Amino acid sequence: MTRVEVRGAYARVHAPGLEDEVAVEEPLEIRVDGRPLAITMRTPGHDDELALGFLHGEGLIDGPREASPTLEANTVEVEGPLTRDPASRSFYTTSSCGVCGKGALEEVQSRPIPAGPQVDRDLLARLPEQLTQPTFERTGGLHATGLFTPDGTLVEVREDVGRHNAMDKVIGWALRHGVAPLHPHLLCVSGRLSFELVQKAAMAGAPILVGVGAPSSLAIRLADDKGITLAGFARAGRVNIYTHVERVA
Amino acid sequence: MTRVEVRGAYARVHAPGLEDEVAVEEPLEIRVDGRPLAITMRTPGHDDELALGFLHGEGLIDGPREASPTLEANTVEVEGPLTRDPASRSFYTTSSCGVCGKGALEEVQSRPIPAGPQVDRDLLARLPEQLTQPTFERTGGLHATGLFTPDGTLVEVREDVGRHNAMDKVIGWALRHGVAPLHPHLLCVSGRLSFELVQKAAMAGAPILVGVGAPSSLAIRLADDKGITLAGFARAGRVNIYTHVERVA
Repeated sequence: MTRVEVRGAYARVHAPGLEDEVAVEEPLEIRVDGRPLAITMRTPGHDDELALGFLHGEGLIDGPREASPTLEANTVEVEGPLTRDPASRSFYTTSSCGVCGKGALEEVQSRPIPAGPQVDRDLLARLPEQLTQPTFERTGGLHATGLFTPDGTLVEVREDVGRHNAMDKVIGWALRHGVAPLHPHLLCVSGRLSFELVQKAAMAGAPILVGVGAPSSLAIRLADDKGITLAGFARAGRVNIYTHVERVA
Repeated sequence: MTRVEVRGAYARVHAPGLEDEVAVEEPLEIRVDGRPLAITMRTPGHDDELALGFLHGEGLIDGPREASPTLEANTVEVEGPLTRDPASRSFYTTSSCGVCGKGALEEVQSRPIPAGPQVDRDLLARLPEQLTQPTFERTGGLHATGLFTPDGTLVEVREDVGRHNAMDKVIGWALRHGVAPLHPHLLCVSGRLSFELVQKAAMAGAPILVGVGAPSSLAIRLADDKGITLAGFARAGRVNIYTHVERVA
């Protein structure tokens, strides 16, 4: 019999022969005008930002909305209106043409990202060093996303068991604080670069996305298509630039 | 302009100043009797196993089914019948009681997992060393799940950009080859231990789940509840046993 005591974003674990601290994972139901829209497994905290960032990444809102989290019930209520019907996204609902990477790219209907900023390669390589992760330090179990100015100053960072949630929270924060669209800001993530993360960055208008880990093929194709500079394996002072290297000196 | 040449599970990337290999990520649509059921972003290959493992983890099938992947269209057709209506799962559809971790635990309707096997702690600590990952070696971008006998012999391993997909593929393989339910086999994953991975292991009847990374709070609670021995941070000859330590000598 193992006991798990939740204390916010982390939990204390008491097991035979083991005392440890782990990251909390709990479901969150995102509702819009009382209607359940999605459930995500997340680390509690900043649930309002998570909901706004998620809805923005899906193209369902184009600016901030009122959002009221109820931590005990693991729900967050968002006030509409939505900018489109959640059921209208053809990527998830049609099947007549099969599904292909090209279709996935075309489904991401983000606005064009302007040229600039210009950054040094060395600055990109060193962004992850600034990704402070207090709960990761305790638990080893969290992903992080950081928002940076073009000169490499950390603006805000969020942690979560889900890498997509950490980015949603940062983008939700930006919506709340009037710094979205994110151009000319930089995003940096603590892990790998998936299609989904590039999608969220594109919807938020971020010109540069840096990851500590590897990019996937579709992440590269989407970044190339949307005008995002995608940088991977940013560690030990090195970084690979996969797309739109024209922003990197 | 960046070029991405897909070659199975990996792709060659040609960008200004960079030649690299990355893991392929493409959407896969899972259909049952012609009806689209789910889309997952995955690394192509073993799509039939992925579909079967996914459906089994969701409690939608209780044994092998015919599954025909069409790689070019990124689809896989599974022949029914399903054991329940896909829309009936209350966790994803009701909202009257809010959503809580307890509700998530109760939704996982797995069969009891018998006692045993008995294993050495050192054997668990060294399982990840056997997780051969040919495409990870090339790309650094893939998760792996391995199926092992109780004496630590690797039976089968699968890689994928999604950690849940890698486990689905292994479980799908087991369904195909008559070794499901997995008791008394061991599962080992290359990353962190989330609720979702424990859920899939529980549905497959695996008594022991080992991870290289950290477990989440809800992963521990579910493993404790379902009778699974959950072991995390298996690296450098060490391992933490979070639940059901009675199987570990």
